[in-house]
Amino acid sequence: MNENNLIKFLIPKMAQSNDVIVPPGDDCAVVKIDNTNVLMAVDQVISTVHYTPETDAKLIAEKLLKRNLSDIAAMGGVPTHAVMTIASNRSANEWYYQFYQAMANSCQKFNIAMVGGDLAKSTAKVSENDCIIEVCTITIYGKMTTENILLRNNAQANDIIFVTGKLGNSFHSNHHLTFTPRLKEGLFLAENNFSKCAMDISDGLILDAKRIAVASNCVLQIDEKSLPLRKEASTQMALTDGEDYELIFTISPHKITKFVTKWAQAFPHTELTKIGKIIKEQPKKYPNKVVINENGAILSENDNIGFIHRD
Amino acid sequence: MNENNLIKFLIPKMAQSNDVIVPPGDDCAVVKIDNTNVLMAVDQVISTVHYTPETDAKLIAEKLLKRNLSDIAAMGGVPTHAVMTIASNRSANEWYYQFYQAMANSCQKFNIAMVGGDLAKSTAKVSENDCIIEVCTITIYGKMTTENILLRNNAQANDIIFVTGKLGNSFHSNHHLTFTPRLKEGLFLAENNFSKCAMDISDGLILDAKRIAVASNCVLQIDEKSLPLRKEASTQMALTDGEDYELIFTISPHKITKFVTKWAQAFPHTELTKIGKIIKEQPKKYPNKVVINENGAILSENDNIGFIHRD
Repeated sequence: MNENNLIKFLIPKMAQSNDVIVPPGDDCAVVKIDNTNVLMAVDQVISTVHYTPETDAKLIAEKLLKRNLSDIAAMGGVPTHAVMTIASNRSANEWYYQFYQAMANSCQKFNIAMVGGDLAKSTAKVSENDCIIEVCTITIYGKMTTENILLRNNAQANDIIFVTGKLGNSFHSNHHLTFTPRLKEGLFLAENNFSKCAMDISDGLILDAKRIAVASNCVLQIDEKSLPLRKEASTQMALTDGEDYELIFTISPHKITKFVTKWAQAFPHTELTKIGKIIKEQPKKYPNKVVINENGAILSENDNIGFIHRD
Repeated sequence: MNENNLIKFLIPKMAQSNDVIVPPGDDCAVVKIDNTNVLMAVDQVISTVHYTPETDAKLIAEKLLKRNLSDIAAMGGVPTHAVMTIASNRSANEWYYQFYQAMANSCQKFNIAMVGGDLAKSTAKVSENDCIIEVCTITIYGKMTTENILLRNNAQANDIIFVTGKLGNSFHSNHHLTFTPRLKEGLFLAENNFSKCAMDISDGLILDAKRIAVASNCVLQIDEKSLPLRKEASTQMALTDGEDYELIFTISPHKITKFVTKWAQAFPHTELTKIGKIIKEQPKKYPNKVVINENGAILSENDNIGFIHRD
């Protein structure tokens, strides 16, 4: 059993309370506090997994925050507050200063109040080839400005599937460090009621698309030839690399014309690509809850999600 | 500059928003959401620091949650929700099951909804003597049921200082794993308006007392002979060991009689000890913002806080 199945098996064991509007399993949980739908999510970056020993403190801090913001974007929300932890065996205070300064600047840029944190400097000795052991986390809070929360289980039959930006080759192109979370785009989709179903692509298009298929009990048909490829990315890389931090979302067919026009006005610089459609009508033609390509070949049988599972 | 000073220097750089009622620096931050004062805090446990390689998964999970609950208790609040992360290089799935099951049980016991999480299984290789590298975090949410938030900066001249339970020798006695967070006691102090100033003792009495002295701009005079000692603890251990997870709080002199009576009724099994008083009147006799003993000797000059700083 890999981490994906492990956490899928275990998290639902956790009892929820009546104020939990969206339980664990989407990009964020949603909790009703008085009249506000509050978004909550947590994510971590780990040395040797999410960055290399040479990566600047500034880029690590920014990636950590932006990974979390991407989860808020995927719900159509606005980020508000955060708390953070650092556990590291680095000895130089200078690194911590750089990390915090970059985090402070990023929080200001995205209008987020960092309200707490915990720092643990460890003296853990590790082998010489692997000298930095570091785990940094952020828990992000946000709020919805509309009742229309973008959920994985809201895909409808015949919805058209879109993605923002480009896919594949994120790690080697440094996109995984330099990306801009799609907050404005997510808010636009939610507030204008264009979409009801979105998530962010962090573990690779096929795997994340399959999560929508499972949650919405449908088939996602993806036209492999249509995928917007990042520089030096192959179709296969676009399907499975991960770390794209783009949005995948669905739009009802009758809204498409208006949506495409308004998108072009609102986001002239954010690439928008139609990559497929939602199928619910033919449960016997394809097994349910899978991702298929334009020829009907199943893309999602391999359940290997790589290193990280994100809720 | 140690971690304490490092984080003290850096966290206030983080810009706050108007809805932040209590900024970073107390046991929890407090954010106003509609009509609710929401408590937010984060804490972590790290292998080789907070537990030994032999410690049961169950006890690690419980400690992680209870450390966070102790922060909610120190504000006089009620815990409501949490999110968690695990980054570990353990290979056995069984360990993760045990951890999650214990966490699920603990959350149910304390009536907390675990609404999200992230699990990263790492393959980090470390030296043979130090084989588990593991960082687990919880971000805890709570709410106030009264306007009376217990704050470190609310100590008043002539207030009497109390602690719950016993102090010292927490690590070797396993108290650091088996303690019960003082949630009921904190709520009692806040809801009955007995106290306005509390915190939890996690880094040692002197250091935590000094935090009240700095925040409230006063002197804490502690009667060393009065300290309630845990089995096999010396006075010195009670002053500096840490990991007690007891509450230190102050009570106005005119409320003492009623408070002591009501406490005995409410908590017949929670030891209550008067350990000193708040001095604000003699700024020339003692330097300000220090902890002194019954003879006026300054206890808090050594700023060494050990390994962990907690917000």
